[in-house]
Amino acid sequence: MGDKQKFGAGIWHFATYVDRYATDGYGPSRGLIEMIDLAGQVNDLSVVDINYPFADKSVSLEDVEKALERNKLSVIGITPEIYTQQFAKGAFTNPDPGVRRLANEMVNDAADVVRRFGASYVKLWPGQDGWDYPFQVDHHELWNASMDGVGELASQNPDLNFVIEYKPREPRVHMSYDSVARTLLGIEKIGLPNIGILLDFGHSLYGGESPADAAQLAIDYNRLFGMDVNDNFRSWDDDLMAGSVHPIELFEFFYTLRKNNWEGVWQLDQFPFREDPVAVANGAIDFLKVVERALDKLDFDAMRAAQKKHDAITALKMAEKALYSSY
Amino acid sequence: MGDKQKFGAGIWHFATYVDRYATDGYGPSRGLIEMIDLAGQVNDLSVVDINYPFADKSVSLEDVEKALERNKLSVIGITPEIYTQQFAKGAFTNPDPGVRRLANEMVNDAADVVRRFGASYVKLWPGQDGWDYPFQVDHHELWNASMDGVGELASQNPDLNFVIEYKPREPRVHMSYDSVARTLLGIEKIGLPNIGILLDFGHSLYGGESPADAAQLAIDYNRLFGMDVNDNFRSWDDDLMAGSVHPIELFEFFYTLRKNNWEGVWQLDQFPFREDPVAVANGAIDFLKVVERALDKLDFDAMRAAQKKHDAITALKMAEKALYSSY
Amino acid sequence: MGDKQKFGAGIWHFATYVDRYATDGYGPSRGLIEMIDLAGQVNDLSVVDINYPFADKSVSLEDVEKALERNKLSVIGITPEIYTQQFAKGAFTNPDPGVRRLANEMVNDAADVVRRFGASYVKLWPGQDGWDYPFQVDHHELWNASMDGVGELASQNPDLNFVIEYKPREPRVHMSYDSVARTLLGIEKIGLPNIGILLDFGHSLYGGESPADAAQLAIDYNRLFGMDVNDNFRSWDDDLMAGSVHPIELFEFFYTLRKNNWEGVWQLDQFPFREDPVAVANGAIDFLKVVERALDKLDFDAMRAAQKKHDAITALKMAEKALYSSY
Amino acid sequence: MGDKQKFGAGIWHFATYVDRYATDGYGPSRGLIEMIDLAGQVNDLSVVDINYPFADKSVSLEDVEKALERNKLSVIGITPEIYTQQFAKGAFTNPDPGVRRLANEMVNDAADVVRRFGASYVKLWPGQDGWDYPFQVDHHELWNASMDGVGELASQNPDLNFVIEYKPREPRVHMSYDSVARTLLGIEKIGLPNIGILLDFGHSLYGGESPADAAQLAIDYNRLFGMDVNDNFRSWDDDLMAGSVHPIELFEFFYTLRKNNWEGVWQLDQFPFREDPVAVANGAIDFLKVVERALDKLDFDAMRAAQKKHDAITALKMAEKALYSSY
Repeated sequence: MGDKQKFGAGIWHFATYVDRYATDGYGPSRGLIEMIDLAGQVNDLSVVDINYPFADKSVSLEDVEKALERNKLSVIGITPEIYTQQFAKGAFTNPDPGVRRLANEMVNDAADVVRRFGASYVKLWPGQDGWDYPFQVDHHELWNASMDGVGELASQNPDLNFVIEYKPREPRVHMSYDSVARTLLGIEKIGLPNIGILLDFGHSLYGGESPADAAQLAIDYNRLFGMDVNDNFRSWDDDLMAGSVHPIELFEFFYTLRKNNWEGVWQLDQFPFREDPVAVANGAIDFLKVVERALDKLDFDAMRAAQKKHDAITALKMAEKALYSSY
Repeated sequence: MGDKQKFGAGIWHFATYVDRYATDGYGPSRGLIEMIDLAGQVNDLSVVDINYPFADKSVSLEDVEKALERNKLSVIGITPEIYTQQFAKGAFTNPDPGVRRLANEMVNDAADVVRRFGASYVKLWPGQDGWDYPFQVDHHELWNASMDGVGELASQNPDLNFVIEYKPREPRVHMSYDSVARTLLGIEKIGLPNIGILLDFGHSLYGGESPADAAQLAIDYNRLFGMDVNDNFRSWDDDLMAGSVHPIELFEFFYTLRKNNWEGVWQLDQFPFREDPVAVANGAIDFLKVVERALDKLDFDAMRAAQKKHDAITALKMAEKALYSSY
Repeated sequence: MGDKQKFGAGIWHFATYVDRYATDGYGPSRGLIEMIDLAGQVNDLSVVDINYPFADKSVSLEDVEKALERNKLSVIGITPEIYTQQFAKGAFTNPDPGVRRLANEMVNDAADVVRRFGASYVKLWPGQDGWDYPFQVDHHELWNASMDGVGELASQNPDLNFVIEYKPREPRVHMSYDSVARTLLGIEKIGLPNIGILLDFGHSLYGGESPADAAQLAIDYNRLFGMDVNDNFRSWDDDLMAGSVHPIELFEFFYTLRKNNWEGVWQLDQFPFREDPVAVANGAIDFLKVVERALDKLDFDAMRAAQKKHDAITALKMAEKALYSSY
Repeated sequence: MGDKQKFGAGIWHFATYVDRYATDGYGPSRGLIEMIDLAGQVNDLSVVDINYPFADKSVSLEDVEKALERNKLSVIGITPEIYTQQFAKGAFTNPDPGVRRLANEMVNDAADVVRRFGASYVKLWPGQDGWDYPFQVDHHELWNASMDGVGELASQNPDLNFVIEYKPREPRVHMSYDSVARTLLGIEKIGLPNIGILLDFGHSLYGGESPADAAQLAIDYNRLFGMDVNDNFRSWDDDLMAGSVHPIELFEFFYTLRKNNWEGVWQLDQFPFREDPVAVANGAIDFLKVVERALDKLDFDAMRAAQKKHDAITALKMAEKALYSSY
């Protein structure tokens, strides 16, 4: 299986970034084509997730297609930018119905790009949907609007899959789709087959979940449509290189995927603010291959037997033995 | 409304405690009857939640009844102790089926005590059900066992209500019923009408939820069967005096209850390790009465109008004005 | 005392912001003069802290002076921008000695602006000095460079005060000046009289400190040169409106200042991403005045007596009585 | 070096525990001699740290000595139990001077046991010294009492070393010796040579420190007198098996020790509530030996070169290569 595992990345992995302090950016800004060409330099990358609308208005779909082709990349998903200035107070939950309409239109446009590229899904990351202060919102209305916005899109595009990438917070102090359980609760209430979850390992980790448990739960509801990895220090979405802080839990996460025969792409969602993005992508994939080899080596039956007894020490020793001999 | 609000407390509020360091306890141990007599000294307490089996085996139901009567207290719920030594590796999720059987039996016994006292519910707090380490458990099986255990009890006792008190962690490093959304997901899957949530304000707070949002969600599923309050520093279940750290969010929590016409008992779940328990209960209730007066004063229509616009500053100023003038 | 309390704000309170998602900003960008004019609209603002170099290169010191004058504002401090693109890998701790030199020069320039405006201090906020990953830096060298950079500046400008605003993290995953104790340790090692601390209430809170304890410690070392307030949810520097989440600890913080006869300006360091900045500043100051009135009302001797016994419940009841009757 | 590395453990590693829920304990209680015999079963344990007074009053120093001898164990430190019922409101900072006296006497008794066993230090872990609530204590007086208590002991016993094991919290909501920097600040103020730090990896981790940075700082002040390891999920002192969650940072911690030629015992401070203590100790030491082999393999010069450039990715790749090939 090792050889055939596909790797992917959000194209923003190859952007430069701004934040509220370095308002002039962590480097000269890069265009989409330049980012694709950088993605092409990563050793084992097959697919990318692309933001829409494109950062450069001058870039056409054809330009993008050509750039992808010369870098042997295909598109797994399109991420509409429903979290920029006009959506600062929310996309699906914006108090202004006109802005909610704009969000719907932008995502529908993104759906067309998904069709154009034969991608797997439209990715919804409603980062501005939520609240900042106590007393700010009516939680009943906010949550209903969160579900309505997603439900409407899925109804309008029954031929496509939509994935929700939940996250506890940032940029909102609290996001409405904040956890795997809340997101599944919403998806079940909406009741449509073409809405799933894109599970970000780091979001799960810093939300206090066990990413392995979150993956299992999403799988049990047949809603794990995608995933990506990175790392952090459990209190913020640091988007560091995968494996740099929590290799054991990352290993358990992939163990859970394989045990369930979940066979999607292993994607990266990293933000190398101060590092060379190609080096960080290669570094992460190198570690993911260590994990793959460790999985090939692991005795799944023995692991199941230990887990049946909740025997943590035996289970961990098997995991450590596999991991620490797989470079 | 102010005058008629009922207050309650877990009877353990009046116990003394041990922990892993002060193994000789934070004071001489107290019997159940003594605790009830202390509860009777609190100015405005009407109901208590009692652990079962009773700490003192020599105490009979009649003894308890008499003690309650002389202190003008009634019983709102019974909490079976499914988290002591024999359940150290779980009650509903214990790897040993014999222990799972014991848990079922103990809760069924507690159900009889609920009937005897005419209480409102059996409270389930499965604090040992969960995991400590990565790789320790099969998350699919653990979660199924969590649901099966509760579902079996609710089926066996269709005349009674069961409430689940979720909590992120402690004593397990991760509890299986860890959040409002996860618990609702489980309850919906079980699909029985007599299972609800007892929402502990502090558990919600330190789990990264907005307690007001959690209450609204449980209400929207018709599953908010009870609640209790306390306070903490957002990283652990400190069970401090209600209002001592987060008065604004406590106020928003009660605002949400009143807005939804939720009219249950306002209970205390505090652990005064080093303080006089009667003083801590009185101190908390004094603050809850400040909140009540502030609610009476608050212009609910104006609050709704501000929230409709997500206007945090206007909403907060109304809340502050009401609160800071209600001593 | 109430009437004479001076209030201040960082001028960035009146800016618009970008972050890594809303790269087009949370509103149209504002020039420095425009920000000063907004600051002038706040009801009780006397002083501002200004970033240097000015955002608009075309703005002269005279322009700024005029704008301040017409808004009846004076300058309390100058904050050199040692955290923009060129300092992405650190100012004082940058691996490149040339960049360290640039940082020194920029702060020296800022020192001249302090002199020009008769301000109280140069504020150092070395937000990019620290690390992101395990194994990234030699901690001995990094910390020495942190101290050397500040010490050199204080030696070069013995006529001026320098204040260090510590913070646990952001934008670096870990900042070298991360806490009150670490910063005092560094200041004592440097051994110069003109280096102190600017204590940000929110940084202290989310770093796990008690802000009151942090203030007391800095005062005990004669190093509390300034302070500012805001609020957050204890896991990130949310820079919300002061008092909106943690009014009790804010009250204790100001109680500690008054008890020690600390008589500086009460400053705001808030980032109203999605709100009207004038409304947020007024809202915060309204609450600070509630605190002032509550302090006037509080029986300091009785509080001392309760604290002498570590009697939390009595102490809190006095605090609550004063606060909840001071709107 | 690998062969000669000494391993140790707190003798409480082999106890059974109680907490506020499992008040009947996580197993039948064990006597000190029984614990020592269990410690003797661990494959590579040379030294233990023993609590004083002994849990069983009937056990004599001779009994302990004999048990140690037959298990080939020696004593590295004695930990006086200044955190039981009588010290519930503090040992050094207790509001009652009589209790402070008792604490002083108990530690002086423990000092005699240190002499008797030829141990390296008296370990001070003032877990009840601190506060729970806002407004509870006068922080100036509390901190002074914290320093006075330790200083008096060090003055009374100039022939012995005292180590302070700092910790952010538990059982107090906030401990006065809460971090490496605060503890060093206190030690420097006391100004005696025979007071140092015992750095607990897990305390450092969940206090938001980088344990490697904390170790370096203590070393730079010549105050790193001891250390122990375990693991947790960064929000509580879980005292899990070392390496089970954060192997990378544990590796960096030991890298820092070796780089500084720090050559003390590698101790375990784990609380196996639900696991076999011998298995958990062996599991931890197995991982520590992986770390040792990885250190032997690591190119320290190349690591220094990468760190000089703050080149996280190169540094991490070297660390990963060493670690993942060292089982």
